[in-house]
Amino acid sequence: MLSPMLESIDSIEVTQNNLTHIHNQTIVTGDRPTGPLHLGHYVGSLQNRLLLQENNEVFIIIADTQVMNNDITKCAQVRNNTLDVMRDYLAVGLDPNKVHFFLQSEVPQLFELTNYLSNIVSLPSIMRIPTIKSENQMYNAEEKPLNMGFLNYPISQTADIILFDGQYVPVGIDQTPILDFANDVIDKFHHTFKSQLKNEKIFNRIHALLSNNSKLMGLDGNNKMSKSLNNAIFLSNTEQEIEAKVKSMYTDCNHLKISDPGQVEGNMVFTFLDVFHKNKEEVMELKNHYQRGGLGDMTLKKLLMQDIKDIVLPIAQKRSQYTDQYLKDILQAGNEYAKNKAKIKMDKIKDIMFS
Amino acid sequence: MLSPMLESIDSIEVTQNNLTHIHNQTIVTGDRPTGPLHLGHYVGSLQNRLLLQENNEVFIIIADTQVMNNDITKCAQVRNNTLDVMRDYLAVGLDPNKVHFFLQSEVPQLFELTNYLSNIVSLPSIMRIPTIKSENQMYNAEEKPLNMGFLNYPISQTADIILFDGQYVPVGIDQTPILDFANDVIDKFHHTFKSQLKNEKIFNRIHALLSNNSKLMGLDGNNKMSKSLNNAIFLSNTEQEIEAKVKSMYTDCNHLKISDPGQVEGNMVFTFLDVFHKNKEEVMELKNHYQRGGLGDMTLKKLLMQDIKDIVLPIAQKRSQYTDQYLKDILQAGNEYAKNKAKIKMDKIKDIMFS
Repeated sequence: MLSPMLESIDSIEVTQNNLTHIHNQTIVTGDRPTGPLHLGHYVGSLQNRLLLQENNEVFIIIADTQVMNNDITKCAQVRNNTLDVMRDYLAVGLDPNKVHFFLQSEVPQLFELTNYLSNIVSLPSIMRIPTIKSENQMYNAEEKPLNMGFLNYPISQTADIILFDGQYVPVGIDQTPILDFANDVIDKFHHTFKSQLKNEKIFNRIHALLSNNSKLMGLDGNNKMSKSLNNAIFLSNTEQEIEAKVKSMYTDCNHLKISDPGQVEGNMVFTFLDVFHKNKEEVMELKNHYQRGGLGDMTLKKLLMQDIKDIVLPIAQKRSQYTDQYLKDILQAGNEYAKNKAKIKMDKIKDIMFS
Repeated sequence: MLSPMLESIDSIEVTQNNLTHIHNQTIVTGDRPTGPLHLGHYVGSLQNRLLLQENNEVFIIIADTQVMNNDITKCAQVRNNTLDVMRDYLAVGLDPNKVHFFLQSEVPQLFELTNYLSNIVSLPSIMRIPTIKSENQMYNAEEKPLNMGFLNYPISQTADIILFDGQYVPVGIDQTPILDFANDVIDKFHHTFKSQLKNEKIFNRIHALLSNNSKLMGLDGNNKMSKSLNNAIFLSNTEQEIEAKVKSMYTDCNHLKISDPGQVEGNMVFTFLDVFHKNKEEVMELKNHYQRGGLGDMTLKKLLMQDIKDIVLPIAQKRSQYTDQYLKDILQAGNEYAKNKAKIKMDKIKDIMFS
């Protein structure tokens, strides 16, 4: 028999079609509240959450304390950003009757569990995680020291998931090493307390829900869509903002006249049409036409504008309906639910450790 | 003007006489509950706490989670040990009406604050602390990896002190680098949030109360008195145990006959008489007599036995009077007081960080 430490992570590739097969599971996911959400979030995670909320228990953590890792001063904007993010969640259709939204900073048991787990985590096992490794290399080059908050974040993420009995975690492929790490921590905990646990398990192993569309490119075509890179269309953008942003998109710099043959590969408008235009046959025909010549960029951009408006404008319209107090009340209820669940679980964990 | 980071720690040398000058201060101290307390604790810290409790607010943290740093399995005995330690505290005369006793594991805000502070602490600043440095060297030699719980412990100790507005912390000279580190963290916090703080301070700088007798040697004469080295006289020892332990003490291996001149230096019985025999003139005369010859080891040991019995037996007798429930009730009240105070302080800290 394989030692539990040698089992590899049971990641499963998931498309939006087969997400509907996930039933009666606990899903833990979340976002760092660094600003309003954009189309990258919509395509990469929000759409999946809409499907998952129908048949599962979903926890969405607004990771306001993780925002501070590496830069504690980032907390200043967090409280405003939190309401922005809540507004986005509800406007896309996440349902507070189905989803538990809560703030990381409101559940002290998360810090408590992080602290206990840190005693079974070695510094080298942290340093092996690719995100930490690459940050460390970058910092070494800049002669900047790593900080302890950043080093602790994989432990903190593990606690976020297992304190709520998470079974499935939607992630991009680049985040799977963190889930691997988390499963190692779970195995180590079970191994350490095996006599107290009498061969029972107190934590679920974690499965990755890999999203196909996890990385929507930004308007610049060079990077993932991101607020900080100023290449995003937000779910709160107006009609005029959407039009201006789509107009600014990079197509093919050699496609000067409409009659010129144009390039499809690397053309961001086609990249976006592939994602957002429902009629896939029409996209295929447009690509052929564009490559032959005779199809103007503006025709394509107008089509894309409409596709994006069809998604964003109803969301943006709904966003404006929620008062701050309404959002705060929902968050408050979620915080209470999460705190209560966390307390019960933490008491069980302590009973095992201290028995 | 010096930057606050350049100020050195304001440590003050303290003897039992001038401890009485410390008034209206908040003192934070504590023990790891690794077993019953011994004479080393009595001389090194408990006697000072008896003086300090008269005119100050004293918090005594039973550091049950810190016990697990580096070895999480050590928590198994912690709950029993906690009652043993509480029994010792009350038996020596610490007064629950004057002192707040509480368990580290019962105040989740300690983990919360540790988490926030970790974002302003760099890995190199942790690695520079002598206790971490020497452990790291030892581990490198044994090819054992450092664990994250151990690396976080200086941050956790800082949180223990500043969450309760600690101003004075009784320490041995070897622990002052941790207080230096803690003051650096405090300065860094104040600097980071200076605009939110409007030049106010939210944490007190920490002063070290250095004890003269902080390191009582063990019965073997080779090491500090310690339960794990099996060289301790416990505050719970019986008359017979004390007699047997004192009899076993190392004197002068060349002092074979009573008439032989004996050596005082390195003679553990004299080392202990220096600490425990009240009549210092008599000790001086005994040393002279011993060096001339004609004074037997057993005469000295009987004197020392009596001195130790005079201290330990009344404590041991009192120990037996407390029921487990009585101790639990006191601890429960202390936990509630500490939790409440911690919550108020943590809310203030969050208001500053998040504003």
